[in-house]
Parts: sequence; C-alpha cells; structure tokens
Amino acid sequence: MALIVQKYGGTSVGSIDRIRNVAGRMARTRDAGNQVVAVVSAMSGVTDGLIKMAKELNEEPADRELDVLLATGEQQSIALVAMALHSLGVDAASVTGRQAGIYTTGSHTRGRISNMDPTLMRKFLDEGKTLVVAGFQGVTLDGMVHTLGRGGSDLTAIAVAAALKADVCQILTDVDGVYTCDPRIVKNARKLPEISYDEMLEMASSGSKVMQSRSVEFAKKFGVIFEVRSSLNDNPGTLVLEEHPNMENVVIRGISIERSQARVTISGIPDHPGMSGKILGCLAEAEINLDMIVSNISSEDRSKHSFTMHSNDLGKAQAALKPVLAELSKDAKIETEAGIAKLSAVGIGMRSHSGVAATMFKALGDKGINIGMISTSEIKIAVTVDEIHIEDAARAVHDAFGLDKEPV
Amino acid sequence: MALIVQKYGGTSVGSIDRIRNVAGRMARTRDAGNQVVAVVSAMSGVTDGLIKMAKELNEEPADRELDVLLATGEQQSIALVAMALHSLGVDAASVTGRQAGIYTTGSHTRGRISNMDPTLMRKFLDEGKTLVVAGFQGVTLDGMVHTLGRGGSDLTAIAVAAALKADVCQILTDVDGVYTCDPRIVKNARKLPEISYDEMLEMASSGSKVMQSRSVEFAKKFGVIFEVRSSLNDNPGTLVLEEHPNMENVVIRGISIERSQARVTISGIPDHPGMSGKILGCLAEAEINLDMIVSNISSEDRSKHSFTMHSNDLGKAQAALKPVLAELSKDAKIETEAGIAKLSAVGIGMRSHSGVAATMFKALGDKGINIGMISTSEIKIAVTVDEIHIEDAARAVHDAFGLDKEPV
Repeated sequence: MALIVQKYGGTSVGSIDRIRNVAGRMARTRDAGNQVVAVVSAMSGVTDGLIKMAKELNEEPADRELDVLLATGEQQSIALVAMALHSLGVDAASVTGRQAGIYTTGSHTRGRISNMDPTLMRKFLDEGKTLVVAGFQGVTLDGMVHTLGRGGSDLTAIAVAAALKADVCQILTDVDGVYTCDPRIVKNARKLPEISYDEMLEMASSGSKVMQSRSVEFAKKFGVIFEVRSSLNDNPGTLVLEEHPNMENVVIRGISIERSQARVTISGIPDHPGMSGKILGCLAEAEINLDMIVSNISSEDRSKHSFTMHSNDLGKAQAALKPVLAELSKDAKIETEAGIAKLSAVGIGMRSHSGVAATMFKALGDKGINIGMISTSEIKIAVTVDEIHIEDAARAVHDAFGLDKEPV
Repeated sequence: MALIVQKYGGTSVGSIDRIRNVAGRMARTRDAGNQVVAVVSAMSGVTDGLIKMAKELNEEPADRELDVLLATGEQQSIALVAMALHSLGVDAASVTGRQAGIYTTGSHTRGRISNMDPTLMRKFLDEGKTLVVAGFQGVTLDGMVHTLGRGGSDLTAIAVAAALKADVCQILTDVDGVYTCDPRIVKNARKLPEISYDEMLEMASSGSKVMQSRSVEFAKKFGVIFEVRSSLNDNPGTLVLEEHPNMENVVIRGISIERSQARVTISGIPDHPGMSGKILGCLAEAEINLDMIVSNISSEDRSKHSFTMHSNDLGKAQAALKPVLAELSKDAKIETEAGIAKLSAVGIGMRSHSGVAATMFKALGDKGINIGMISTSEIKIAVTVDEIHIEDAARAVHDAFGLDKEPV
C-alpha cells in the first residue's frame, strides 16, 4: 500500500462539478489500494473575491488580517472535498493547516514552513481515513494564522509528503508535465519523463510557470520526489528528482522563455570598490527584482553595468537610480531598453559538454536574431533578444539541440 | 476605563457598508474611553451560501465538515471588521474562536463551551488593541473545529464577557430591546428597561425571538449582566440581570406568543407506571421537541396525555406514536389538532401575587376566545388558543395587565 500525496490547485476545485471530479480521482487512487492525502487550494475566484472586499474596506489591508481572511478559502475547499468524498462512500476527513501541524516563521502573507508535526494526519491515516489538507496556510508557534505566499499550496504538498514520508507526491495541474519548451510556442516540444531539481529550479527562475522555485528548493532539501501531471487525464507526467548519472547524457533538458523584460545599462561610473554595491543596493531598497546582471570594465577605468528586470519595474528603477548616480559621478549615464525577452537553455549535461553556447548562438545567428546580454550558470545559458523574435528564437534553439527527439 | 463586549449579528455585518458602520460604532465606543471587544457573526447570506454548496455535494454533509466549512464565515468577518477599524486609525486585531481560547465539548454543529482561556485576548487588550472575536465557533481540546449551533454568537459574547470580566456586555441586534410584547402585534407595547434572567428564559422558551435560552442560561450561570439593544441607534436597550426585590412589584413583565403549534392528545391508555415514559420516550427518539405536556386521569383508570409541538413535527409524531400505542392498548386513541398558538404571560411578581390566572382567563373570555390547554410554571402561565385569535388574545392580555403603562 503506497501513500500518495496529491496537490490540486484552485482551478481543479473551481466549481462543484470540479470538486466532484477531484473526489472521484482521489477515490480511484484509493480504490487502487493506496492511502491518499490531497492538498487543495481555494476554489478559483474565492481568494480574489476576498481580496476585493478587503480593499474596499482598506486600501492597504494589514497582512495579519489578510492571512486570517484568505486562509478561509482553503478551509472551505477541504470541507467541501471531504463532503464529496463522503458521498462516494470514502471515509475522509478535512485537515486545516494547523491540524496538519504546519508551523511557520517569517512574515504574514509570506510565511515559511519551519516545522511539521504530522501527529494528527498519522492518526487519521492509521484509522483508514483519506485526508484533505488545506494548502497555502500554517500557524506560528503562538497560534497566529500564516499564509505561505505564491505557490504556497505546492509547498504544502511537498512538506506534507516529506513529513509523512509519502511514496509519491503528485502536483496535479492544468499542464501535462514539464516540456522541453512551451508547447504553445514550439509545436514539437516533448514532455520530459524526468528532470533534476536543479534543472527545474533553473527553468522556474527563467520563466517556466509550472512551479515556484521555493517548492522545488524545499523538495530538493528534503529529497521529496514529485511528479507534475495533469488533473484532467491519467497520463504520466514529469518526475522531478535528484539527478542521476544517466541524466547527463542529455546536454540540454529544456528551453524556457521570459517575456516583458527590460534592460538598464549604467556607464561612466568610476571603477572603485563599493560602486556596484551602491547601485544594486538602491534597486534592492526599491524592491526591484533584478534578473540578469552583467558588469565589465569598458574604457578608462570606467565600469559598465547592465541588468534586466520586468518591464513594469523600469520606471521605478530609473527613479531609484537617478539620485544615486548623480552622487556617484557627473559622467554617469543611464540607458534603458524595454521590449526584450530572455531565452534560457537548461541542462545538467552542459557541465560535461563543451560547445553548447556555440551551438545556441549559431542557431540564433542563422535566423538573423541578434543577441543582447548573455549570462551563464553551470547548467544554464541565458540570452536576451528582441521580444518580437522570442518565439522564433525558441524554435531555432529547440531544433538545434534536437529536443523534439527522444534522447538515446 | 470600562471593558465593553459588543455582539454584532450577521445582518449588522451583512455588507461592506454595514461593516464600516460596525467599525464606526466600535471606534466611537473606544473614543469614549473604553476597551472594546466585539464578537461578530458571519456576514448574512454567507452561511446559507456555504450550506447550499455543501448540500450540492452531499445531501447529508457530515457535521464535522460542516463545522470546518461554516466556521470560515465568522473568520472572514473578523478580518474584514479589523481592516475597517484600521482604516479608522484604530489598533485592532482579529481573534478566531481558537485564539480566543473558546474550548468546547459536545457534538459537532452543537458544541457547548466547556472552558475559556482568555490569555491571548488579555495580552492584546494590554497592548491597547481593540479586538474582533469570531462568534459561533470554538475548538475541542484536541483541536477539532466546533460551531455552537443556533444563537452561538450570543453565547460567544456572553462567554467572552465572563472570561474577561467585562463591565458591560451589549447584544446589538435589529430590535431596540425586549418589549412587553411584540410591537408589531401590540402597538402600545413598551420597551422594558430591565428583565430578570428567569423571565428572559421563559420569554425565550415561549416564542420570543430576541435570544436563545442557552445564552441566557449561560449568562445567569456566570452572572453576566447583558443589554439587548439596537445596532442602528444609540438608544438604551433592555438590561438582563439577576432579579432584585424591586422587580417583584411588577406582576407580569411581558407576553410572548408562539405560532404554528399543534396538539396531540392520546387517550385510552391504562394508567400503569411507565406508560408516559414509553410515549414520551418514542417522541424523544424521533427528535421531536415537545413544548407543553399535560396529563390527567380521565375515566376508569384510563389516562389522557396532551402535548404541543411545532406543527411541522406533527406528521413525524403521529408516525412515531402509531406502533407504540398499538402495543400499549387496543383502546388507545390519538387525536390531533393543528392551527393553534401559545400565549404566555411571564413575570417573577406572579410568585407573590394571586389571581393572575383569573385576570388572564377573564380577559380572554371577555373577547370570546376559547382556551385550549393550560400550563403553568412558578413565573409563567401559558395557554393555547386558535391561531387566528392569537393577536387579539395578546392585545387583550396586554391590556388586562396594563403593560402599556410604566409600573409604579
């Protein structure tokens, strides 16, 4: 008898009929001889409705009260899914974040899981129950309600799987798995049977919308193997796990793209120690997330910094930089470019294969696509291109690495 | 500085605007130099909406899951009221049933408060906070969610007032207070400045809709003086408290009526010990609440039992009685009557005044209204009349006792 943790997102429980489907899927999994623990999100729309009411009462609602308010969404889902299971004859019990023993630290609306006490879940499982656990929520040691922020339900599922030492953790979503590239862009993209944590992390941080990095990091830390699969069919999805030697045969695992990027380039700054710190510091203070950061010495000991960010942040970044640059040098110049996108090729095989960058750049060059910034990590090469070329670029690189074909 | 507990029902927090009003009232109470703890219900409509979803998934949703589901209604209200208070500049915090230390025993959907641990509320009050506590909910010692059943938020308010040793407990509702009779029926009904717990209990159990008996019993047990008053204006309401000698000057405090009653009369049963027990036992098993119960010996050692119940229960009662009566005696006869109503006159002064029943019966007789069953307690006389005469009966008895005039 295997213990299977399944995570269902807000769309999967978004209506009475969909809740019935979720219950049906759980019942089938159970009838196949498994113990089942589902982690569910709030019904889609519920959270937005609550936030709307909150904003009518207070333009900046307190995070503590937002947590109390929003945690009700998942609490409703677990009760409803349990009721649907009962009507299928399944002995089921809902479990709130607190009852699941999910203890958190950190700030309200951005809680971090610090400890798990699965005593009650264990007891219920021993009684033969199927469990429905509220995602996205936990409590502090002194009993305050926390929500876990974006991707919080995935995180709950991984944490519950870790605490219960589950045999399988399935992240059920509206995509079939992790693809070599977004199939809406690259028609012959292929679903990956497996991907390493590190590759999944690079994909997540470079635009793949399948999962938030923090859930993948949590799974990696606790060695939880999970599978991303569709909640709409029974096809196998993509296993995410620690890399194993066979995985290195593949040079590039997948391509991810991120649109709506913007670049800021600062030049004319004297190359003194602490200059970069001051520039990056002021952007961090303005709460701007930088993505690629490239620095070099241009001429006459003047350095040149370029970074990319979401184009929504461009105005805020310029405003934050203005006084700092004025203070640093009268020669400081700032140049900005919006309308760019990022293309990343990810693969742990890259470590042991040379010439990866060359293949990628040649593929882009053959299509006449100009490369802007370049940034590399041990298992990733990322470039910026004009946003209008990003789909062509993705197809060209996907073809160049033969990602449509099963690896040998 | 007084500590004031205020209870706001579902209608009072039934919209964003009404939540603003509640916050405004709380802020005014605070600005007048008081500590304020509000106990709030779910926004009106929310609970019904949740129950509707539950019934779509399961015709008989499990009580445990209903509790988990319905408790979210109050949890949403407390967060929203707290946010509204913040926007008025009031330092406020929401407090769930669990955080308020409301511990319960008993069944799901009908939890009973067994213990209060106000540590967190005390701490918050000491920090100068205004509190918004979720009504209607508590937790068992092992952390399961309980709701408290009908009138549960009133009960929460009384319990919180007791635990915090509040100076005042205000039950804010859509009526101005407790009246000598329903003012929609008796135009010259008078608002009572005060009423004893026992009178309020008799009024509640004989049809007055102002408050459930259990909350009044709880208040009596813990000596919590509370005031029933309107949430729409600042008029003083009715204080409910332990009786004091002055109160006995009034013979009848008020009149309450209960419509849609039905009578069952059973005759021809041998007058043996245990017979009544068998009859009442089978009705209890069928979960039928009996109100008036009258028994006497009719003739030839045959007893006659009459009882009243809500007319909705009449069919169920007949079905439950049929096999039992057949077994007890072949002479057993059952006779039923629907379309009756109950009129009760309540007052602790009755104890020391004779002739109360005579005054009441004469008033009804003068109007040509026939009396059916009669039942009395130490501080109450109740009679049944045809439902079509109940309003005339109420006015006649109200007049006969001069309830429209201030007592001397």
